Amino acid sequence: MANHRMLSAKPLPRDIDALPQPYLLFLGDVTEPAYAKTAFGLRDWARERCIGEFACEAATVTTGLPFLTPIQAHAQGARTLVIGVANSGGVIPPQWIAALIQAMDAGLDVVSGMHARLEDIPVLRAAALRLGRRLIDIRRPPSGIAIASGRRRSGKRLLTVGTDCALGKKYTALALARAFVARGVDADFRATGQTGILIAGGGIPMDAVVSDFAAGAAEMLSPDAADGHWDVIEGQGSLFHPAYAGVSLALLHGSQPDVVVVCHQPGRERVLGHPDYLLPSIEETIELAVRLGRRTQPAIRCGGVSLNTSHLEERDALRLLAAESERLGCAVADPLRDGAAFERLVTDCLA
Amino acid sequence: MANHRMLSAKPLPRDIDALPQPYLLFLGDVTEPAYAKTAFGLRDWARERCIGEFACEAATVTTGLPFLTPIQAHAQGARTLVIGVANSGGVIPPQWIAALIQAMDAGLDVVSGMHARLEDIPVLRAAALRLGRRLIDIRRPPSGIAIASGRRRSGKRLLTVGTDCALGKKYTALALARAFVARGVDADFRATGQTGILIAGGGIPMDAVVSDFAAGAAEMLSPDAADGHWDVIEGQGSLFHPAYAGVSLALLHGSQPDVVVVCHQPGRERVLGHPDYLLPSIEETIELAVRLGRRTQPAIRCGGVSLNTSHLEERDALRLLAAESERLGCAVADPLRDGAAFERLVTDCLA
Repeated sequence: MANHRMLSAKPLPRDIDALPQPYLLFLGDVTEPAYAKTAFGLRDWARERCIGEFACEAATVTTGLPFLTPIQAHAQGARTLVIGVANSGGVIPPQWIAALIQAMDAGLDVVSGMHARLEDIPVLRAAALRLGRRLIDIRRPPSGIAIASGRRRSGKRLLTVGTDCALGKKYTALALARAFVARGVDADFRATGQTGILIAGGGIPMDAVVSDFAAGAAEMLSPDAADGHWDVIEGQGSLFHPAYAGVSLALLHGSQPDVVVVCHQPGRERVLGHPDYLLPSIEETIELAVRLGRRTQPAIRCGGVSLNTSHLEERDALRLLAAESERLGCAVADPLRDGAAFERLVTDCLA
Repeated sequence: MANHRMLSAKPLPRDIDALPQPYLLFLGDVTEPAYAKTAFGLRDWARERCIGEFACEAATVTTGLPFLTPIQAHAQGARTLVIGVANSGGVIPPQWIAALIQAMDAGLDVVSGMHARLEDIPVLRAAALRLGRRLIDIRRPPSGIAIASGRRRSGKRLLTVGTDCALGKKYTALALARAFVARGVDADFRATGQTGILIAGGGIPMDAVVSDFAAGAAEMLSPDAADGHWDVIEGQGSLFHPAYAGVSLALLHGSQPDVVVVCHQPGRERVLGHPDYLLPSIEETIELAVRLGRRTQPAIRCGGVSLNTSHLEERDALRLLAAESERLGCAVADPLRDGAAFERLVTDCLA
């Protein structure tokens, strides 16, 4: 897999190639796997940079990588503790502090993609100063973002949109970008969240941009490009999400996607963390994304559907993908299961 | 008009009653009246606090208030120069700097609602320090905004939504809040932009909130209230705006309005500042606001339409309002023209 190939030819504002590597992944005290998506994303898409995992005693989630204390990890070459958890609100809870200081004591820098800034926590700041460690916040948008112009840009764009958060928009975009490149198509993965930025080495943390500039940030993220070039953009949130729909709409408008791929997790019926809210259907999500996206990209179309079937047996998953494809009348694939369904999705997106 | 009555009984995070008054309104070098809406808003809704206006030579827009140099204004009692212009992007252009320093030289503090912070411009900062003046940025959101919960709140809410920016959403909300109070209904105007905040003495600058928290800010702005209480919330942007639709959607979701009133300026055909974009129709705007708003407030309905007919003769305006009411099948009024049409709009909103 040509990870390097997926970096933008035209450098984007953020460049974190200089982050000290390899990483020790920190899982905090997390008990809900969906909140550990940064750790899972790094394990799956940047495995070569991850030495192991570390967590508070209360944590029940694991990446499957070896559990190492910061001292053990440092002895094996780790240089940075990466906070691999993205809880709602992006705060750093008090019960993590001891573990973060333990990591710095062991010789590791700390990288965070949370909203809360490491530098703003006095005890962490003091420990970093005392020990000569770096506190690195990657969820800081670049400066110089302009208000969106709405001007159409050259090149092609694909955006993943979801029925909810945390169900496969980033994985789908990464897999599609890889598959495009494998077919000889000039393509870049464009990261919009902390995990994607850590994986890709660049991008803009969309949800940290001041709301007036959110669509402008999306325009900046996928600039004018050659006619045959594709930007494959990581979606955020959902147009139906009671907290994040505004971010999703700004990203849709600013991205001006030629193609959207709708991402869903079969069986998820309620919005993660908002159990009073039912998930929209796949059809509603396609219809609303195309309708709203048409405002800035009249040629927008749905290239197909991506289902996260990680909780199903292979046979059941393949049966479901085929049935959903039949029912919806479009390509339906799980990008993490190779095969004909995914190849059809790639073909339909590029069509 | 009981301005004080419209302040929230439950104090909101920002309180700018302590702003030094009265004001001298600064028009910069503006030649497009729509960009001077802060100055016009203060003239129309807080006239008693405005001594006069001041501008660069290139300006062609006027509020009709007496033109005063900062020295003249200070001699007449002015204490603050209020930047009355809201250009796209919220930047303070270099050609304003001399005028702002002139004001500080004359003894005035400077208040800004722009995105750019006065404090961040070294030459202004230095002048303020040297002269002992204050640089006050009101476009700074309160701290402690949470991610939106989507939980339904008690009390009633009305949100003005627009076909575009700068065509009457704030005026409509102010007029409706006044009219509600005049009918003995317990109501508060809730400001979401810099002008509204200057007028009301409180509010949250929605477009300056980090996008992940925008819907949460809207929830904070109209907290739980008594059953018969109405929050009348100033809308922002438009769900069809290529740059600001995300802000509008976050405000719609977080406000959970029982009633929306759609605001439009007859004759405006293209998005202000984005001439490639046609304005949506009133019907499309009603339909989309109700459809998207239903996600967090299933009982949402359109209470009627507000038309900004300031460019029409009275007779033509009244004829248009009647015709549009007939065509759309709902109350259509210009809140700045008293009369039966506006009374019907108020009645239908409260129904």
